[in-house]
Amino acid sequence: MTIRYPNGQKFTPVPLRDKREQPRDHVTFSNRGMTLEEDINATNAYYLNCGMAVIHKKPVPVQIVRVDYPARSAAVIKEAYFRQASTTDYNGVYKGKYIDFEAKETKIASSFPLKNFHDHQINHMKQVESHGGIAFVIIRFSQTDELYFLPFQALYTFWCRMMNGGRKSITKDELTACSIFLPLGLSPRIPYLDAVESMYF
Amino acid sequence: MTIRYPNGQKFTPVPLRDKREQPRDHVTFSNRGMTLEEDINATNAYYLNCGMAVIHKKPVPVQIVRVDYPARSAAVIKEAYFRQASTTDYNGVYKGKYIDFEAKETKIASSFPLKNFHDHQINHMKQVESHGGIAFVIIRFSQTDELYFLPFQALYTFWCRMMNGGRKSITKDELTACSIFLPLGLSPRIPYLDAVESMYF
Repeated sequence: MTIRYPNGQKFTPVPLRDKREQPRDHVTFSNRGMTLEEDINATNAYYLNCGMAVIHKKPVPVQIVRVDYPARSAAVIKEAYFRQASTTDYNGVYKGKYIDFEAKETKIASSFPLKNFHDHQINHMKQVESHGGIAFVIIRFSQTDELYFLPFQALYTFWCRMMNGGRKSITKDELTACSIFLPLGLSPRIPYLDAVESMYF
Repeated sequence: MTIRYPNGQKFTPVPLRDKREQPRDHVTFSNRGMTLEEDINATNAYYLNCGMAVIHKKPVPVQIVRVDYPARSAAVIKEAYFRQASTTDYNGVYKGKYIDFEAKETKIASSFPLKNFHDHQINHMKQVESHGGIAFVIIRFSQTDELYFLPFQALYTFWCRMMNGGRKSITKDELTACSIFLPLGLSPRIPYLDAVESMYF
């Protein structure tokens, strides 16, 4: 498609990356729909500013291969690769307790695919809980913009079902039955500490 | 300097970056002497494997500017910059409690310069403590390979002294008086949870 401006100039937009190029079985895109991450970051900033909790997103893990040190200016990373995270994305402290969670989003309307999680993330959350920390996931259904707070214990039940040959996803009905609905707000945008408070304190 | 091999070939080594190029007042190099970081990572791996605690180093924060997506291979980060961390490097959970710390090393023998810390790191640790978390720093004197566990409260006292116009460092005597000496070991290499245990539990 070429746009012709009134002054006669032409403008051909660069096509956006076609989402259909993604492998079909890869239905959720952690960190690609930035909205969920941005909403959680804004929520964490709100909680921090209100003195309610200290919870931060961890930086994206990157394997740095080559760095240039130009004279008189900042070091430039010239070659690096994304690494798979060995833990979850968010952690911090609320009322003295260790908080640890992951946020995931799906475009599917009727279920949440468990392939959104990696073994080591599940293991990490299991270890966190075994040490008395609070682990959970925030799940967003992007079609309807519905958010759910799923405690790790419930997630782990579904994970074990899959590992024992059962279904590879959590149906929406199952999810609503064992999670807390998170109403979207303004301040904070995603009031997940309300769910933490009602479930663990 | 050129090395002449027995076979007659020459080898001229590339000079290492001259440490003297660093500004003179920049006496400690966080993350440059990798030994302390490696020792702490090994310690955290030990604690994790023994089921004692879940404590990880956060990834280095990087501002990614340009990423190439070569066909059929992994995305390559082609331009990125180091960002200043807004929190500390290590956090996790021990006996249900939130643990948060920073590790610093100095080449000075008789004192520890406070410029090793940034405002926002101090603020972060203060917030952590105000929410019931446990914050501290591990300080290594690289000349003597001595390690000290300094609780945040003590660090903060020295920080405030500096902010009120007092000295910009902690003398070694002051440090030894209000910290716990960490004997280097094998498993774990830096037994900092012993200090946490004796001071907070």
